Formats: sequence, C-alpha cells, structure tokens
Amino acid sequence: MAARPKNAFYAQSGGVTAVINASACGVIETARKYPEQIGTVYAGLNGILGALQENLIDTGKESVEAISALRHTPSGAFGSARYKLKGLEQNRAEYERLIEVFRAWNIGYFFYNGGGDSQDTAHKVSQIGAELGYPVICVGVPKTIDNDLPHTDCCPGFGSVAKYVATSIREAGFDVASMAATSTKVFVLEVMGRHAGWITAACGLATEKTGQAPHILLFPEIPFDEAKFLARVDECVKTYGNCVIGVSEGIHTADGKFLADSGLRDAFGHAQLGGVAPVIANLVKQRLGYKYHWAVADYLQRAARHLASATDVKQAYAMGKAAVELAVKGHNAVMPTIVRVSDAPYKWKVGKVALAEVANVERKMPRDFITDDGFHITAKCRRYLAPLIEGEDYPPYRNGLPDYVRLKLKPVKRKLNTEFKV
Amino acid sequence: MAARPKNAFYAQSGGVTAVINASACGVIETARKYPEQIGTVYAGLNGILGALQENLIDTGKESVEAISALRHTPSGAFGSARYKLKGLEQNRAEYERLIEVFRAWNIGYFFYNGGGDSQDTAHKVSQIGAELGYPVICVGVPKTIDNDLPHTDCCPGFGSVAKYVATSIREAGFDVASMAATSTKVFVLEVMGRHAGWITAACGLATEKTGQAPHILLFPEIPFDEAKFLARVDECVKTYGNCVIGVSEGIHTADGKFLADSGLRDAFGHAQLGGVAPVIANLVKQRLGYKYHWAVADYLQRAARHLASATDVKQAYAMGKAAVELAVKGHNAVMPTIVRVSDAPYKWKVGKVALAEVANVERKMPRDFITDDGFHITAKCRRYLAPLIEGEDYPPYRNGLPDYVRLKLKPVKRKLNTEFKV
Repeated sequence: MAARPKNAFYAQSGGVTAVINASACGVIETARKYPEQIGTVYAGLNGILGALQENLIDTGKESVEAISALRHTPSGAFGSARYKLKGLEQNRAEYERLIEVFRAWNIGYFFYNGGGDSQDTAHKVSQIGAELGYPVICVGVPKTIDNDLPHTDCCPGFGSVAKYVATSIREAGFDVASMAATSTKVFVLEVMGRHAGWITAACGLATEKTGQAPHILLFPEIPFDEAKFLARVDECVKTYGNCVIGVSEGIHTADGKFLADSGLRDAFGHAQLGGVAPVIANLVKQRLGYKYHWAVADYLQRAARHLASATDVKQAYAMGKAAVELAVKGHNAVMPTIVRVSDAPYKWKVGKVALAEVANVERKMPRDFITDDGFHITAKCRRYLAPLIEGEDYPPYRNGLPDYVRLKLKPVKRKLNTEFKV
Repeated sequence: MAARPKNAFYAQSGGVTAVINASACGVIETARKYPEQIGTVYAGLNGILGALQENLIDTGKESVEAISALRHTPSGAFGSARYKLKGLEQNRAEYERLIEVFRAWNIGYFFYNGGGDSQDTAHKVSQIGAELGYPVICVGVPKTIDNDLPHTDCCPGFGSVAKYVATSIREAGFDVASMAATSTKVFVLEVMGRHAGWITAACGLATEKTGQAPHILLFPEIPFDEAKFLARVDECVKTYGNCVIGVSEGIHTADGKFLADSGLRDAFGHAQLGGVAPVIANLVKQRLGYKYHWAVADYLQRAARHLASATDVKQAYAMGKAAVELAVKGHNAVMPTIVRVSDAPYKWKVGKVALAEVANVERKMPRDFITDDGFHITAKCRRYLAPLIEGEDYPPYRNGLPDYVRLKLKPVKRKLNTEFKV
C-alpha cells in the first residue's frame, strides 16, 4: 500500500492585496492536480496564527466554484496576519509549536504567501523542521504591493495598485483641468509606500505628454524641499492652469522628519490625525493661495480588484501554481520569481530563488527611475512599469457590484489538546 | 431660400461628473440629426464664462470620433465653471451680455448642463431673451452627483458615484475583515454630500446581509451623537470583528457644528486641514483604542468613469438627446427628466418639467430611507438605489489605462470687439 501523501499548509501574511487570493487559487487548484504527492491543503485561519492556534481550514470543504472565485476576489480570503515570528533564538517555542501542529496534521509542505518578512519566516521553518527531525518543504509565494522583494521582476499585488493609482490620478486630473478656470487649481492624491516610491512612480504612468496630470510626484527617496516644491507648483499652475500631485505617505524632509507628522495638534494638544495629502494641500494654500482638493486612497488602492491588472492577476496565479510545482519536485526553501524576458511586448517566465537570498533584502527604486529634478519618472522607469498594468481582468458583477466570494471558513476539529498563546 | 437655422449654445456648469460628457455627446450627436433646425453647436469654454467672454468652441471642428468618445470620458470636456449668474436685478448686465453674444452668433438654443442653480440660470435666460426681443429656447440638461434635483427619478452623475462608493467600501470591507485579527479593526471612508446623504446611502448597497461592510453610515440628515456612535462601533467590532464606516463630509452635531471643522489647529493656530474621516477615526482611537485606517475619496469618486454605472451613462446620454428633441419641438424653459416606471426590473422613460418648477427646489433624502437608529439604509432606500448602479460600461483602454479623449478646444475668432469682465 502506498504511503499516504503529505498534506500542505498555506497561509497569507501581512497586508493583503487585490490578487493574493489569485495566488491562493493557484496553490489550491494546482495541489489538486498532484493527489499522489499532496493530500489536503489546509489554510491557516488568519495566516500563521492559524497554524500556531491549530485553526485550520480544510480547503477541500470549500466548493470548486468558491476556490475558483478566489481568482477575482480581493483581500485575504483565509484571513491574513501582521504577525512576525521572532528569531529562532528569541522564540524557539513558536517554531516548535508550528512543527508540532504540522506533525499532528501530517503537513509536508508549507506555502507562505507574503513579503520579505514572510519569506524569512518560511526560510526559518525549513531549517527548524530539519533540525527537529520533521522536514517540511517550505516554498514562499511572493506578494506585496510595495514591490520591494529582490530577485523577481515585480511582486504580485503591485501591478494592480499601480493600475489603480495611475487610473485614479488620470481621472482626477481630467476633473481638475475642467474646473480650474473658476475652482480647484491644485489636487493632491496620497498613495501608499512608506519607504519606497514604487506606487508613487506608478502614478506617473498617467502622464503621456508634458502638461498632463500628474505634474508633480513626491517620492520618499527624495527629501522634501518646500521652496523647490512650491516653486514647481506655481510654475505648473501658471503654465498648465492647474497642478496635480501624487505623494507618497512616507515623504520626509532632509533631516528625516515625516511630513505626515508635522506637529499638528488639536485643541487638546493631541498629535495630528495623519495623512500627508492634507499637509501638502494646506501648505500650497497658505503659501500660494490656490484652491485645493485632496484625496487619500488608503485601502481603496490595494483592495481595488475591480480595476486589477490582468498581468498582475496572471502572475499572482502563476506564482501560486509554481510554488506547488516546485514543492512536488522536492525544491525546498525556495520562492518562485517572475523573470522578465522583454519589455515590449512584455514577456516573462517563472524562475526561482533560494529563500536565503530573499530574506531581509529590500529592493529600492533606482535613482535613475526618478527625473533629475526629483518630481517625475524617467523613460527608463516607464519602460519597467508599463507592462505591469497591462490588461483588464474584470470580476463578475451581481446587482451592480463586484461579486466577490466569501468562504465558509469552518475550522477543522482540533487534534491537539494544547493551547498556544500568541 | 430657407432661413438659416439657428445655432445652439451648450455649456457645462458646476462640479463635473463621470458622465456629464455623455450628456454633451447626446446633445451634439442629436443636434447633428436636425440640420434644418439647428446649425452649429457652440460649446462654452469653461461653461457660461465661454458665452460671457465669447470663448466659443465650434463642436463641428471636433472629429466625429472625438465627440463619440465623450460618452466614455469623465470630467467636463469643454471646461465647467463654478460661476452663478446673479439675480436679474443685481446684475442685468451679465444677462444682456449673454444675449449680445447669442445674437452675434445667431444662437437660438441654449442647453445648460448642470444642477439646481444652473436650471435657475437657464430659466432666467429664457425670460430675459424674450424681454430683450431676442427669444432663445432654453432647455436644461440635468446633472449632479448630489442627486438633489426635484421631479426626476435621479440625476445623471449620481449613479456612477453610487456604484463607485459601494464598490470601494465593499472592497475595503473585505480588506479590513481579512486583517482585523491582528491589525486594523475600524475603517472610515469619507464620501461627498455636504447637505444630502444620497452618496452615503449608496455605500449601504454593499451590505447584503447583516454583518457585512459597511456596518455604520453617518448621514448629514442625522445629527452626530458621539456616545451613540461609539457604542455602535464597539458593538460592531465585538460582534463582527471589525467595523467599516461610510461618512458624509457634511455630518454635524445637533447644534449644527460640522465635524470636519472640529477646532483643530496647527502649530501656528491655523484651522485644521479638513476631512471628516480622520476626525472620526481619531475619535474611535482615542475613546475605544482600536487601530484604524481612513480614506477620503474626494474627486476620485466623481471622476471614476472606469467604474461608471451603465444605467447612469445611458440616462446621461438620453438627457442630452431629449433636451435637443424638446428644443426642436419648440419646448422652452423645460428640462427633460427621468421617470421611473418600475423598480425591478428597472424601467424608465424620458419626461419633462418646467424650469420654473426645478429652480431652487432641493430634493432631500426621505427620512424613511434611513433606519430608525440612523446608522444604515432601509429596504425602501435600497429599492430606490439598486437600479441606478446596474450595469457596467467600461471605457476603452490603451497601454493599461482608460483612453479618455482630449478635445482640441480651439476657440472661434471673436465677432464682438467688446470685452466682458467677470
């Protein structure tokens, strides 16, 4: 009689995206094609917490249609977690608990869908499993809107945010241009990206010719220079009639002070409420007197599955699929990657990288992706970004709204009679 | 020899929408079908200012393709204006100037595409024209995201904003639900609507079952009660694990104080930067301690042609078309309307109303559209709103982004040698 195949554990980690569920779909649908190597795929309820607390979802209990619908559903369908496992030395108990749960559920594969920290965790799990005599094949599935994982052309999740912010700032730019004669002259859109300006850069794709919105981009990589910024705003309004600005939440001055933490206090002396867009807009108003509007996209940008990039959706699914294919071939402690073959037409293939090389390496935006004056993107940046937003992949609609799936998420009956406090 | 047909003047007025250009398209394409009654359609550059300053766009110089593309292009393609003509007694000179320009350009039809104020202006123009011996057929074309025009089932522009905010808050709701175990528990989305809660109500369409986002809506019609609100937030977090809130920019306390003007001051004592979402979010943090995120959609919501309601686009076009058809039949001082025939399936037809009945009447949201506790919409409200967001009408895409048209907008050579200062 053949050995019972090992089961798999899949978890979502960190901030969610419009397409992380497409990766989940890729993992689960592909695993079902290898019944001799992979038994059941268990998903962690709320990410890695699901493993630590033995809250596992048997994905086999979700219908084929529901799993398929994950491909067009934003957010983390199984729950994600902002929970970083500590180093092996600091909290060995957490890793041992993971292995305990894996052993109880005959888990032989660990698929961890997240950013840099998560890849580091997956790497550590592969090490501790071997050390404790319970080897687990650990494969990372890349995900992050921040686009800061190394060794991959881009990160699933980023392309859809990029398409959303570029579309939104183009649309707002049309709006402002049509009103500027008698009303709003300056518009500020705040986008995510605390350390890296990838998302801010994507706003720049909306500008096809000089004079089109956005006119100014403010990157976290470029120290904010108030005088230079105000001069440029004034020049734009005088030249083009209006000025549309895309700003990263993480911009700061040369001395490292975040603009979003600008010393604003309410009547009780409480710190200001956050949001760099209103700070920038108010600065323009006070110094230049222009009427302004501002928007903060926040979660709207990373949840906007209705406007996902078809390229991004394909890549997210492909990474989930490739992770399983690597695992059944016995590759351990690796992560599939996206390898760019050509820019235009965009061609890419699936590659792989050792987790050891991914962990704790952050990919920064190259300086030559930003124009010399620091206020826009270069042609080189545009060549890199353009393919990532290519194509539309609309979700189905019901009653006028996107028809996203909600899973049953009924946890399995626990096998262990131990509790684990996190 | 037949008399030379009169020309038409078309202008966009007030805040723009995702579909006001669809109305422009309806006006221009329909006028071209009546060459014996209507000569050239001139559009005002920047709305009514274009007439006052004799900055006219000959729409015949724009290509057929460009005019057709207006149907899928947001914003006001000819420029809109926040410029309200004063009363006849206060500034008769403005009205006389309009008639002077109309006379110079043989304008016999005036199509004014705007909200309540604009319909009032169109009404006055019809009166003054007759009085000055230069009769002009004045027909209003309804437009406003605020949905506050009377005598019409809804206002073109509203349905698309409604679809955008309902989709966005559903997507953000999925995001928050998947993160709430370890991260954000409360999310606040601020939407437009200073006086009426129509847009806030539309957020409520995303909730199909109790417990789904949004959990709380804050309407300008319901005085903000801090204690009651905080109790409800806490209840939602404890019951559903998270709380998603849609809030109108215009909410205020029982004594009329706007929450967005909450006494916040910066280090120099300047008034706060605006935005009610951060005020609400911060209140929750201070009193309940929950981690929050907030978004302010601002212009993104009214410019989001990428997510337009197909019903809204059809109605916007139909209103432009009907305005021309009314005009060529000799109807003066009227506005076409949308008449609801049935809710489900939604059936509607084109009606008309005298401008005198539209001017200065604001349609409020009925109290029975809001639940007794003031925090959500009723089934009756849902029946009214649901059809307005039905259907998708995607714009074409080029290079991954919506391909919106930019007109040439070359003003005609002026005939008058008089300047008019506004």
